[in-house]
Amino acid sequence: MRNKGFDAFSGLDPLNELIHSLRRLPGVGPKSAQRLAFHLLQHDRDGALALGESLLKAVKEIQHCSRCNNFCHSDLCSICSDSKRKASLVCVVETPADLSAIEATQTYNGYYYVLMGRASPLDGAHPDSLDWPKLSKRLSDTEVLECILATNFTNEGEATAVFLTERIRRLGVKVSRLARGVPIGGELEYTDPTTVARALLDRRQVGGDID
Amino acid sequence: MRNKGFDAFSGLDPLNELIHSLRRLPGVGPKSAQRLAFHLLQHDRDGALALGESLLKAVKEIQHCSRCNNFCHSDLCSICSDSKRKASLVCVVETPADLSAIEATQTYNGYYYVLMGRASPLDGAHPDSLDWPKLSKRLSDTEVLECILATNFTNEGEATAVFLTERIRRLGVKVSRLARGVPIGGELEYTDPTTVARALLDRRQVGGDID
Repeated sequence: MRNKGFDAFSGLDPLNELIHSLRRLPGVGPKSAQRLAFHLLQHDRDGALALGESLLKAVKEIQHCSRCNNFCHSDLCSICSDSKRKASLVCVVETPADLSAIEATQTYNGYYYVLMGRASPLDGAHPDSLDWPKLSKRLSDTEVLECILATNFTNEGEATAVFLTERIRRLGVKVSRLARGVPIGGELEYTDPTTVARALLDRRQVGGDID
Repeated sequence: MRNKGFDAFSGLDPLNELIHSLRRLPGVGPKSAQRLAFHLLQHDRDGALALGESLLKAVKEIQHCSRCNNFCHSDLCSICSDSKRKASLVCVVETPADLSAIEATQTYNGYYYVLMGRASPLDGAHPDSLDWPKLSKRLSDTEVLECILATNFTNEGEATAVFLTERIRRLGVKVSRLARGVPIGGELEYTDPTTVARALLDRRQVGGDID
């Protein structure tokens, strides 16, 4: 029996509405949603309030950078509006999360371009869905000398890299790809053979170049 | 480098504010919070909006039932305002989540009383923190004949049950406790000995009572 006369969200009371909404989070099923809702209401109403406000604010204010597609809350993202970075380098990633992963290394000082997708022929995503004209325009900036393709090393990411390589070269921009190899801390015995093979092929001379 | 002139939440931009707020959810660490935020912004802005609104609405509207402490959005919860339930039965649970677990069985037709806590001497929660006067008043209703103690079978839940049993009996109300035993689908071989011992003690005659 449900209380009547309530401003309803498809007929749900506020508690069930909250549980229903929490299920929109990836990896949250009915049981977890209920647990989260009870936790917030019972132990952390301030947290619930802060989260609610942050969500509304984020949806309202976070847009895409007009230059690189990264998330931002003004026309240009904080990276694109940082004039101290190297204008000669543009790193192409699939998503803002990938950009974050590279920024987390604190070793890259160029700009980015976020594809917001990838070529995935199996899912019907043709390479043309990547908005090549926008990327092309970005790379046609005379300051850009090198484009680092940092799409993922998955089938889709590799296909995207292959598709972009030829086109970018035609713009007269040097194309590079992130190195593949054995991860730091990795043991050869437990590394898959394809990775070891690639690490062999891409081996680097140590102790100084001879040529 | 962060954009300036932004209405800040302890100095964070909306994206980092969202990630920060998502970390208030139990079990969500920095990595998951980032993944959730990127997912919502990239793939489910409608979901983010719905969740944000549900959270604010829930915090604003969900209070505790004046009679049983369950979550509700009016003075009396939907269970307490349901006159078709058995007024002779009151089931005492620790939290609204426990109440939900019993309701989910669809086999209980009495009322509830939610303790919103438990006696936990080790954590400094004295039994007196349980608001006995309110429970006592609820059970003094002349219609109440039996009180089912459905606190958890943890040390704290058992201590709470022991503490309440004597006091409730003194009100002239019959006290019962949920049955302990082997769970449905349970195999004796893999059930802990204490549970099996309890199941032996609490064994039930089958094929009809003789007495």
